[in-house]
Amino acid sequence: MLTLFGDIVSGNCYKAYLLLNLLEIDFKWVNVNVLEGEAATDEFRQMNPNAKIPLLQLDSGEYLSESNAILNYLAEGTEFLPKDRFLRAKVLEWQFFEQYSHEPYIAVARFINKYQGLPDERKAEYESKQPGGHKALSIMDARLESHDYLVGDQYTIADISLYAYTHVAEEGGFDLSHYPAIAAWFKRIESHPNHVGMSLKPEHQG
Amino acid sequence: MLTLFGDIVSGNCYKAYLLLNLLEIDFKWVNVNVLEGEAATDEFRQMNPNAKIPLLQLDSGEYLSESNAILNYLAEGTEFLPKDRFLRAKVLEWQFFEQYSHEPYIAVARFINKYQGLPDERKAEYESKQPGGHKALSIMDARLESHDYLVGDQYTIADISLYAYTHVAEEGGFDLSHYPAIAAWFKRIESHPNHVGMSLKPEHQG
Ligand SMILES: N[C@@H](CCC(=O)N[C@@H](CS)C(=O)NCC(=O)O)C(=O)O
Ligand SMILES: N[C@@H](CCC(=O)N[C@@H](CS)C(=O)NCC(=O)O)C(=O)O
Repeated sequence: MLTLFGDIVSGNCYKAYLLLNLLEIDFKWVNVNVLEGEAATDEFRQMNPNAKIPLLQLDSGEYLSESNAILNYLAEGTEFLPKDRFLRAKVLEWQFFEQYSHEPYIAVARFINKYQGLPDERKAEYESKQPGGHKALSIMDARLESHDYLVGDQYTIADISLYAYTHVAEEGGFDLSHYPAIAAWFKRIESHPNHVGMSLKPEHQG
Repeated sequence: MLTLFGDIVSGNCYKAYLLLNLLEIDFKWVNVNVLEGEAATDEFRQMNPNAKIPLLQLDSGEYLSESNAILNYLAEGTEFLPKDRFLRAKVLEWQFFEQYSHEPYIAVARFINKYQGLPDERKAEYESKQPGGHKALSIMDARLESHDYLVGDQYTIADISLYAYTHVAEEGGFDLSHYPAIAAWFKRIESHPNHVGMSLKPEHQG
């Protein structure tokens, strides 16, 4: 059985959690509390030298880190990853956009605001994250004005990667009412029969 | 013919330039000077709304951005991208590591130092990039101590992604003499018969 090491308050971990649920794949969840430094112990670094979650362990015992690499691994051969070469590259384009031009603004602003309570010494940094976050949201909204999903016309792992922090962007101070196409896309994603929100189902708690 | 929009001083653009040369694929190079804002014009945003290079245009007229998405697209079906599902995911793991835990430290420190001449007002930011950059280099060095390449035992696009900014990391103030396994890996990469350095060949100049 697959083992996923993560913390469900992290959007990066939620990506893998959501896809595993969509695919109805059974897995073991191991909670790693980053706020308490549990990803930075020597023991954890043996599994992932970069000391970050999420981390997936396969049946073979091998480890895979990086949320978007995990999604590509799990989605291979499923409806969430197209077979066409150009569409696959477009999925990756959105995922690298997410890690470089979206997450460092939106996830970091959310972390400072929600988990650190917007302390004075990080206020300037928090403010500095707003323009970059809005730029990323505008780019997504423009795409979604004329398309149901980010790549092609189907729900792919590109949508999962971007949904993870976008749907909680208001916790980072981003007013989503400016982005109606994003709001409509949220509804499409949330209407999937196997959709789960950003909290653990009972069987994965405790 | 493929068209690559880029600036050869950018490691992100060099990644695609290097792979196209390794694969002996003919392409048109269009120079975009980011320092002079040429990626931020309305015209360029029509092609890439994120206003960044590199950008690849296919024969079909379609565009693909994000350096690592471009590498995956170009490498499909070649020796630089394994077929095995887990090895492919490991390639992506290194590439997402590069964009999240390597480039934002090493490329940004290099930019501040080499292209901006380390101005006083960015000195603190430059210093703040050093620990993260060394952490990334240490993780690479540890892997390369016992393996010839980053993934499996072959030269893949993961190596291209990481080589791009690592081989010029000293321009960002990172002393590479601490990382002997990285130095040995440079030699292996540079010994490929089609290797090109970070400058345009005559047919792509002007
Ligand atoms: N690029 C990584 C980022 C993962 C990441 O930053 N994880 C955070 C939690 S959201 C973490 O483990 N932080 C611990 C640390 O950096 O010490 C991914 O997409 O998986
Ligand atoms: N994640 C992107 C990053 C590309 C990037 O940051 N490109 C820089 C040049 S190295 C750029 O175009 N900067 C222009 C700007 O940000 O205004 C990739 O890997 O392609």
